[in-house]
Amino acid sequence: MLRGKNLIAGEWRTADETFRAVEAATGEPLDPPFACASAAEVAEACAAAAEAQPHFAALPLERRAAFLRLVADKIDGLGTILTRRVMAESGLPEMRLDGERARTVGQLRLFAEEIENGAWQALRIDHADPSRTPPKPDVRMRKIPIGPVAVFGASNFPLAFSVAGGDTASALAAGCCVVVKGHPAHPGTSELVAGAIAEAVAQIDLPGGVFSLLNSTSNALGEALVRDPRIAAVGFTGSRGGGLALMQHAANRPVPIPVYAEMSSVNPVVLMPHRLARAAEELGKAYVASLTLGAGQFCTNPGVVLGIAGDALDTFLGAVRGELSQVPAQTMLTGNIADAYATGSQRLSGEAGVELVGLGAEGSARCGRAQVYTASGSAFAANRVLSEENFGPGSIVVQCTDLAEVRSILAAMEGQLTATLHMEEADYEDAAAILAIMENRAGRILANGWPTGVDVTHAMVHGGPFPATSDGRSTSVGTLAIDRFLRPVAYQNMPDALLPARLREGDAGTLRRIDGEYGC
Amino acid sequence: MLRGKNLIAGEWRTADETFRAVEAATGEPLDPPFACASAAEVAEACAAAAEAQPHFAALPLERRAAFLRLVADKIDGLGTILTRRVMAESGLPEMRLDGERARTVGQLRLFAEEIENGAWQALRIDHADPSRTPPKPDVRMRKIPIGPVAVFGASNFPLAFSVAGGDTASALAAGCCVVVKGHPAHPGTSELVAGAIAEAVAQIDLPGGVFSLLNSTSNALGEALVRDPRIAAVGFTGSRGGGLALMQHAANRPVPIPVYAEMSSVNPVVLMPHRLARAAEELGKAYVASLTLGAGQFCTNPGVVLGIAGDALDTFLGAVRGELSQVPAQTMLTGNIADAYATGSQRLSGEAGVELVGLGAEGSARCGRAQVYTASGSAFAANRVLSEENFGPGSIVVQCTDLAEVRSILAAMEGQLTATLHMEEADYEDAAAILAIMENRAGRILANGWPTGVDVTHAMVHGGPFPATSDGRSTSVGTLAIDRFLRPVAYQNMPDALLPARLREGDAGTLRRIDGEYGC
Repeated sequence: MLRGKNLIAGEWRTADETFRAVEAATGEPLDPPFACASAAEVAEACAAAAEAQPHFAALPLERRAAFLRLVADKIDGLGTILTRRVMAESGLPEMRLDGERARTVGQLRLFAEEIENGAWQALRIDHADPSRTPPKPDVRMRKIPIGPVAVFGASNFPLAFSVAGGDTASALAAGCCVVVKGHPAHPGTSELVAGAIAEAVAQIDLPGGVFSLLNSTSNALGEALVRDPRIAAVGFTGSRGGGLALMQHAANRPVPIPVYAEMSSVNPVVLMPHRLARAAEELGKAYVASLTLGAGQFCTNPGVVLGIAGDALDTFLGAVRGELSQVPAQTMLTGNIADAYATGSQRLSGEAGVELVGLGAEGSARCGRAQVYTASGSAFAANRVLSEENFGPGSIVVQCTDLAEVRSILAAMEGQLTATLHMEEADYEDAAAILAIMENRAGRILANGWPTGVDVTHAMVHGGPFPATSDGRSTSVGTLAIDRFLRPVAYQNMPDALLPARLREGDAGTLRRIDGEYGC
Repeated sequence: MLRGKNLIAGEWRTADETFRAVEAATGEPLDPPFACASAAEVAEACAAAAEAQPHFAALPLERRAAFLRLVADKIDGLGTILTRRVMAESGLPEMRLDGERARTVGQLRLFAEEIENGAWQALRIDHADPSRTPPKPDVRMRKIPIGPVAVFGASNFPLAFSVAGGDTASALAAGCCVVVKGHPAHPGTSELVAGAIAEAVAQIDLPGGVFSLLNSTSNALGEALVRDPRIAAVGFTGSRGGGLALMQHAANRPVPIPVYAEMSSVNPVVLMPHRLARAAEELGKAYVASLTLGAGQFCTNPGVVLGIAGDALDTFLGAVRGELSQVPAQTMLTGNIADAYATGSQRLSGEAGVELVGLGAEGSARCGRAQVYTASGSAFAANRVLSEENFGPGSIVVQCTDLAEVRSILAAMEGQLTATLHMEEADYEDAAAILAIMENRAGRILANGWPTGVDVTHAMVHGGPFPATSDGRSTSVGTLAIDRFLRPVAYQNMPDALLPARLREGDAGTLRRIDGEYGC
């Protein structure tokens, strides 16, 4: 069934050097062996992408949208073959993967709608005024695709943030050809999804260079991809170390390019006093549920909880302890991730002033054991280790002396994907001051919820100041993600015959800003 | 009259170490001496900016707009004192500077309107749907200021791209405090304009940290500014070397930040055959006028002209030669710029296959001598030196064998701020293929004009792929420039009481995208 090959501009390619995926739960090698792409194949894929780029960019938007919808249909069509392979490679349960597949095809279809909506083109028309001194020219703007995009598949969302995930969907929606570096933890999943894209490319009669998939276990391949002169931008979700390395490669190119890396976040959650007093137990249970979802392998995992020390917080911690004792050990995505989590937990537990609150069940070495620690506000503030991400189902509850300490801890934290307030009306006045700090530290602020769900909508922001992402000016989830792969171009005194259709006089139906006024 | 001091958060500060501006035309030192800011003062200005930032960001938009308008009024109010000082420091003529001042205050007032328009906030609301599985949350987005911005004054626009120029205006409009590193060629001009801003800051009752001006002749000061942890973004217009250095400093910070550097462009102009045949002489004259405007010291100077070798192009070159002979020597902005231009011209004239077309009048060593060279398409394509920017009134006309050679030369060029087509209807078919190449190489494409005018409008793009700018995803002229200094934040299930006013249910009057639909 699986080929074990790389997909280069529509062609499946084998190689002498291969690697195997392993079953996440056992570490046993899975068939088939997968070809490792060569540096020459990176260059070939990028050259094909560059050649296809003008054609793909010029495709009528309706056809670009049809392409994304067809990719979604093809992924749906992979049925249980896909689910079984992802389960084996990721250790994630079937229900979660069904949900993740729905998210993956849902975001492809949402971007198809977005393409057709057209407002992302930022169309602007300023009419000439020959009577002005100096004469005012006719100037018209639109946004165009930035060029071929390199996408790095993420291990923790083998569907929704991998081969046909959010970065690929938004780059294709922007009109950019895509070269994916598949994550070595799930090459079979990658191949199945790439096959679905390749079928859609062929069926819509696009050049093969619109999409390529390269597999490798070596970081050198990723570096070669980012350094290829034909690549115009990079999308990445993964570790801080990995993201920083890609940022450096991109900055050191003869022609530097933007990197959108989503890297590291502990997603602080603040339990405001009135809410905590009323619902300590309920909050404790919901916290553990969010923390342990998917073995804690979410970028938006609640890694730090802040509350005021006292009876209510003790009740909260008691509920956490009780709830944790019910949490089974869960297989983690890879052995490396399980090892890193165990090491990180060990380190945290040994830091001064850190005490264990509770533990989940212990499993194999490939499992993550749920665990929650606690520390005082001063201990937390004094030691950067306590606020570092430890990817997995581990978290720390910070017992602050007062809200002033909560504020000062939040203000000193690194950039975050999310920040959360649990509150009720009596808390609002104090919450407003905390919210103002959160706005400067995070991309998304939640009220009375848990950060682990990231809805794919128009208003969603999955981004945030460094190191949450490399570039807090954007989002990698939701329709605004398309803007990462666009750049503006202006046309001055261009005759209608040569203007792009949607910038012509009279052409309507898309949001445009004409002489300063927005309208359709 | 002039203090010779730095402005740090509302306070004028002196120093032991000083430098003097020189009269551009003569090199004679001008009074008074100017204090060199220290590293400690950089830190002080940045700390004050960070402290003022939340206050300035939270200012009602109407007051932020009023502040920009007041800055414009104060600059207008400086009258001829300002003009005389800029003339002395820059060597630019009065009429040009009157125009540049009108542009400067005009863009401040345009950004004031833009602030009030509010669409730049990218307001989006997605309503909840509790019946969906999983329940859909209420998510609302807006863009907020990125934080304090460091602006580097440009020498070639001592008003419009210096202390209160485009970068400062767009950063303030976005709600970001600004720390300006003044250009050492015009410290008097900088002080006068900074004084106008300081008066407006005081009059609107803003914290002094909203704006600071630091002077120095040392690059170390600029580096310290870019490396200061409180700076969130950088705006720069200047040399490629200078821009690249700032990009490296920003990328190597513990927290990397975006740099918007506008650096280097030769702005190719293509003379299409039918148009050239009909208007060779007229085009030649207009070319020389554009080339020598302001002693050629525009980022959008037409540095490379492409045409098909033949009688019409010979006529064009004849007109260029004749026109050049009428061009007087013009004082350049600084002695360094005049020296670099002379050296660059010398180098170009010595390259293989390069021939002189014509020269303007010779002046002092501080003047730029207008000069146009010519080369064959193959000579141009073979030697990268011929397509490098030589800042000043020099340019090269490339005699191509056919339009295929024009296309291949354009496709191989580095990123540009502008690209221009001179054409008439019979040229349109061939022009369309060239336009497609230009879209991928430039931020603005002109038809039948010259690139040296950059109108400040909504649709303007003054940007383009590297090395025209460090970041082709943006513009430094026109209202879209505000977007450089913003980042999106989402609010999930946030009660109305805590939402920003314009994201509340019912609040209207600003363009918002509600459940996917745009409306006011």
